[in-house]
Amino acid sequence: MTPSAGVLLTDLYQLTMVQAYVEQGMVEQAVFEFFVRRLPPRRNFLMAAGLEQVLEFLEHLRLTADEIDWLASTGRFSQTCLDYLRRLHFTGDVQAMPEGTVFFPHEPILRVIAPLPLAQLVETRVMNLLNFQCLIASKAARSVLAAEGKPLIDFGLRRAHGAEAGLFAARASYLAGFAGSATVLAGRQYGIPLYGTMAHSFVQAHKDEVTAFEHFALAQPDNVVLLIDTYDTEAAAHKVVKLAQTLKTKGIIVKGVRLDSGDLAQHAWNVRKILDEGGMREAKILASGNLDEYRLRDLAASGAPIDSFAVGTAMTTSSDAPSLDCAYKLQEYAGRPCRKRSEGKATWPGRKQVYRHGDGPEGRLAYDIVTTLEDRQEGRPLLQEVMKQGRRVGSPESLSEIRARAQRELASLPAPLQSLDEAPPFDVRISPTLQDLAKTVDERG
Amino acid sequence: MTPSAGVLLTDLYQLTMVQAYVEQGMVEQAVFEFFVRRLPPRRNFLMAAGLEQVLEFLEHLRLTADEIDWLASTGRFSQTCLDYLRRLHFTGDVQAMPEGTVFFPHEPILRVIAPLPLAQLVETRVMNLLNFQCLIASKAARSVLAAEGKPLIDFGLRRAHGAEAGLFAARASYLAGFAGSATVLAGRQYGIPLYGTMAHSFVQAHKDEVTAFEHFALAQPDNVVLLIDTYDTEAAAHKVVKLAQTLKTKGIIVKGVRLDSGDLAQHAWNVRKILDEGGMREAKILASGNLDEYRLRDLAASGAPIDSFAVGTAMTTSSDAPSLDCAYKLQEYAGRPCRKRSEGKATWPGRKQVYRHGDGPEGRLAYDIVTTLEDRQEGRPLLQEVMKQGRRVGSPESLSEIRARAQRELASLPAPLQSLDEAPPFDVRISPTLQDLAKTVDERG
Repeated sequence: MTPSAGVLLTDLYQLTMVQAYVEQGMVEQAVFEFFVRRLPPRRNFLMAAGLEQVLEFLEHLRLTADEIDWLASTGRFSQTCLDYLRRLHFTGDVQAMPEGTVFFPHEPILRVIAPLPLAQLVETRVMNLLNFQCLIASKAARSVLAAEGKPLIDFGLRRAHGAEAGLFAARASYLAGFAGSATVLAGRQYGIPLYGTMAHSFVQAHKDEVTAFEHFALAQPDNVVLLIDTYDTEAAAHKVVKLAQTLKTKGIIVKGVRLDSGDLAQHAWNVRKILDEGGMREAKILASGNLDEYRLRDLAASGAPIDSFAVGTAMTTSSDAPSLDCAYKLQEYAGRPCRKRSEGKATWPGRKQVYRHGDGPEGRLAYDIVTTLEDRQEGRPLLQEVMKQGRRVGSPESLSEIRARAQRELASLPAPLQSLDEAPPFDVRISPTLQDLAKTVDERG
Repeated sequence: MTPSAGVLLTDLYQLTMVQAYVEQGMVEQAVFEFFVRRLPPRRNFLMAAGLEQVLEFLEHLRLTADEIDWLASTGRFSQTCLDYLRRLHFTGDVQAMPEGTVFFPHEPILRVIAPLPLAQLVETRVMNLLNFQCLIASKAARSVLAAEGKPLIDFGLRRAHGAEAGLFAARASYLAGFAGSATVLAGRQYGIPLYGTMAHSFVQAHKDEVTAFEHFALAQPDNVVLLIDTYDTEAAAHKVVKLAQTLKTKGIIVKGVRLDSGDLAQHAWNVRKILDEGGMREAKILASGNLDEYRLRDLAASGAPIDSFAVGTAMTTSSDAPSLDCAYKLQEYAGRPCRKRSEGKATWPGRKQVYRHGDGPEGRLAYDIVTTLEDRQEGRPLLQEVMKQGRRVGSPESLSEIRARAQRELASLPAPLQSLDEAPPFDVRISPTLQDLAKTVDERG
């Protein structure tokens, strides 16, 4: 039912190029780097995410006998190529920015060093993994900044682009600072805290709203959060107050209510008053329904008494910018730096490091320098060794470590970059050494 | 590595509601319908897709012992609920519009009839599957209409939202009329024709462009399509002409070239002239690079000598509208029709059928009528029985049958709906019978 995301989840041309490389004996070391060419509209920064899935993909890079047989049956591949693919496993090195790191255009966030056919073959899935999780972490971080500390929950699975998108969006938003997700599998797979209430259908399936609320409370006595907008929000709030008294005698506490439609701020004010007057000062209000970072900002600014928010489609699909202008480019082959010069798509050659300035314990980001790997500079180097000859360096980072980093990184952003409004671009400097290298490469032709 | 897209790929509240229903004995027949509330911006119609994956999901709806153990370990679920989940399998009926059918807002495209906990539990994944494939088929259909018959190829995997999105986008675009995909797994899994050329890195890895072209031709003698924009497009075209003569002596024919940057129309004119003058009149020109339906329309209108197009990110992410405002709503429980009345989200109650008028062999769509299932009408009924008591009715449709239907459907659209520009909304009539039912349901309260 679920697709295998193995080697065959790739573009045909990767296999075609592997064949050409293997047949020509072009198997020397290649260096590829993944980076973003420019920020999507309305983004002031991006956040690195998806590295863990890239490393898992590389660790498990194998073709099954069945897959080899199928490739053979297409008649497209030579015996030499099939033999190479049969023995395929990842033997290269990887350097990368840790997940949760803030980054900017032209900064490599991942470098793969491996024999050319191998480094080429992994391109499609590496891009597929990094593009999506960086996209979602970056979008989710904006909601985190806009919500001014109020907890956010991912409700986006139903409109995520398939199974993996739903699961990865739960992970990427959690690492960027969301409090949890409704996606059960994300709880099982990543230990992400799970949240959930009830659907409108639950209320509709009952003859009346109060019975629905009561049934829900009896079934989930430790997690009574009631959805009150199916018919009339304020009328339902009054019902909740009355029911809460009965439930209290059974030892069940109504923890909160959810609003999902209409003017959320106005309903929140009305409902808060009804709950408070009904002796339910402790009950929380959760708001959901087509929320994005702009609506979160407005609701936070309105001072409406909403305690937490659920964010769905806008975050899970990064609806205002559903892809990154990202690339995985060959920067060096057989010790020779190279770069692409296609119109509007030129890149910086060679192996690079990014040095960050100004984000000490108290400070805010000042500028980054991108330079060649040999050109040691002041500042904090952002890319680290994460895989050596096909084996991980160190153990996988926990999501809580990554979350803590992401929180520090967001706090270290200068105020204009933290804003939802477009700020002047962050100062990313290309070092003279790197500029010289580019010139040399171009002159070589 | 890949997520299992089983029962746990769901929202927590589905399981919570299942528990409440099972404990309260609310296990009578429920009827849910999936529909779209309104068209995304700039869309004049939508195309149904993803039904096959929904049916596969329902057929395999089971929890493993491991999954049950994990659910038990969360402490959230009662023994009664866990026992129900342990025995879970799909026993319901499904009616749906066949894939490739054009549809409009408020028209149900899928109905699930099953005991309430079961029909509720499947909501999240059913929506996840239908939202995405309908979204992509609808977007891809626009490119098909804009390209005026020129073949289109899906190149979008690298920026698709994860593995499944890439695979399903290949399927949805193919059924909507694309000629094929670069995604190898889509070839294996669905028999979709595969296409591919080479990457810029292939050219860069070689000391010179001609050697790169030659190596590629030797490795793929039956599929020589050369990417010519890495350095200088027209200069590369001249190299291709020269190389083609040498290759001809070895029996290898250069089938075409790919343009991927710059002014595609202008390059195509220049390159066509160079190829023609070099005796390569048969060689085709494939264009790619940030294409969407608008650029396809402009390129088609320009008369530029481009033979086929590869479309990537814009199609795979439906970039200008990356989700549908869709819903899976309870329309009836235990024989009692119901509907949601939340502000701005009201729905039509009961089991419904859609009758289409005007799309006979020669005709164009005139209007649709949405009415209750009992209210038989003239016109072509669009929803058909596809699953009965958990078993498929008939065998799965082949992708070529679905493609043929999609082609007929697109041809039957009135010209304004075929346009990329926003047309007046298609005439979808709500029958008096259905309006009366809604009134009755509202009065009942």
